[in-house]
Amino acid sequence: MNLVVVGVGLIGGSFAKDVKKLYPNAAIAGIDKSETHLEEALNLGIIDQKGDYGTLSNADLVFVSIPVNALVLELPKILDAVGDDTVVVDAGSTKNLICEVVENHPKRRNFLACHPIAGTEFSGPSAAINGLYEGKTNIICEVEKTAFKLQERALEIFQQLKMRIRYMNPQAHDKHIAYVSHLSHISSFMLGKTVIEKEKNERDIFDLAGSGFESTVRLAKSSPDMWTPIFEQNKANVVESLEEYIQNLEQFKELLLGNAYEDVYQEMNNTNRIKQILKGIPLTKK
Amino acid sequence: MNLVVVGVGLIGGSFAKDVKKLYPNAAIAGIDKSETHLEEALNLGIIDQKGDYGTLSNADLVFVSIPVNALVLELPKILDAVGDDTVVVDAGSTKNLICEVVENHPKRRNFLACHPIAGTEFSGPSAAINGLYEGKTNIICEVEKTAFKLQERALEIFQQLKMRIRYMNPQAHDKHIAYVSHLSHISSFMLGKTVIEKEKNERDIFDLAGSGFESTVRLAKSSPDMWTPIFEQNKANVVESLEEYIQNLEQFKELLLGNAYEDVYQEMNNTNRIKQILKGIPLTKK
Repeated sequence: MNLVVVGVGLIGGSFAKDVKKLYPNAAIAGIDKSETHLEEALNLGIIDQKGDYGTLSNADLVFVSIPVNALVLELPKILDAVGDDTVVVDAGSTKNLICEVVENHPKRRNFLACHPIAGTEFSGPSAAINGLYEGKTNIICEVEKTAFKLQERALEIFQQLKMRIRYMNPQAHDKHIAYVSHLSHISSFMLGKTVIEKEKNERDIFDLAGSGFESTVRLAKSSPDMWTPIFEQNKANVVESLEEYIQNLEQFKELLLGNAYEDVYQEMNNTNRIKQILKGIPLTKK
Repeated sequence: MNLVVVGVGLIGGSFAKDVKKLYPNAAIAGIDKSETHLEEALNLGIIDQKGDYGTLSNADLVFVSIPVNALVLELPKILDAVGDDTVVVDAGSTKNLICEVVENHPKRRNFLACHPIAGTEFSGPSAAINGLYEGKTNIICEVEKTAFKLQERALEIFQQLKMRIRYMNPQAHDKHIAYVSHLSHISSFMLGKTVIEKEKNERDIFDLAGSGFESTVRLAKSSPDMWTPIFEQNKANVVESLEEYIQNLEQFKELLLGNAYEDVYQEMNNTNRIKQILKGIPLTKK
């Protein structure tokens, strides 16, 4: 198998590692705008060789894992360059604009729009790990627009990586993901900002912060290069989720100011249901 | 050593386990308003026997780990009941009101006001674990108001548990902890609420949520019984931190609405410093 990974960071690098494990004879080429990352990926054995768009015509699978602003620019060019029997899979955290820009591309049927929900707050080839995708959800959009045998090729790999597949349209994807992923990042970044602003002596933050703060603020370590274009592309949904979040925070504040501690209790008690939700246990509806 | 643990949950139970490991001959009694928890602690071998306030006069150390609303009521009664040579240590997440209510107590010098920052989102005796306190910060307030030899007794145990000791006045404690702990809990609870409200089909949340959401929303599993009185006692500081947090979220939203993506990038880039802060590396000030 000929695999080309465009963007050899955490997501692309981990994909390359897993594919190499599944198909020891696979030839894996890497493309990256950062020559440093490319050298690093080569030295770490994540890729076998450097590639360029000229080599895409022979690829069985092209995995594109670059920031979503680059993705909307590069994806049409990648499709221009691939062969008729190449499947191009992306890993973008937004899906609507990406599906739109290739909607009328002559090689639309060579593209499978994916979002493997497998990121961490780390980035770069050195962050790539084996088994990143195991048990993770991969959201596939507009599957019907991809040639059947090319869908099959990608899905076989996803299954071997033990991913859980969900099908969704791009609009629904972007709406849901604004709540369960994009909003978490903003809440975390702004929590980090609020605390840093207050605690001028950073040594104190470290001393006083427990694992609770560390967990809540973990996503504030994430890459602005990756996240700025995500917020831009999904602006409408992100702003909506942010407004609802701010409204809930305002309401909680009002309860505190009004000494309505029974209501404060109930707010937390109702939200404790998140325990069952995160365990994946279907809940009885109220 | 005679140890009495008042409140045999995660915090008290873990303390009892560690003390038993350090002092295999220690006699450990438990007091809890929940008979179920007390039986559970006994069955798990966390305590050797049940106690009551009548048994406190012989205790070397009384460890009080109950919700802070109960703490302000029970602490004076506990001090009434202890012997002259007993040290009473609390583990409350607020310190101001607690220090106030015992300020003029005749046995004030038997009390050491502590806040071991070691909680998790779990609670009850079954959540108690060995080694919970290792490497954790223990904030001690008004140390000068505790009899020297009683300070020493408690500190020796804290050192053996490998805790990092920090001294602070109760007002400073409550202000700092509002930012690095109490605010995190509210941000997490309200994030959980916002997502649950939106996603009527909880199965979808589970399917789409990555580890990022799980980490950010982890604290929303916390006990309302514990947290409602904390927010009540630390209302002024919590409301202040919440207002600053909401203001930062509002500002971020305005940047998105105004398409000011360079500023959005800078907001995140500046907050990335949290990486170094959490690692405890002293930072160069800007």
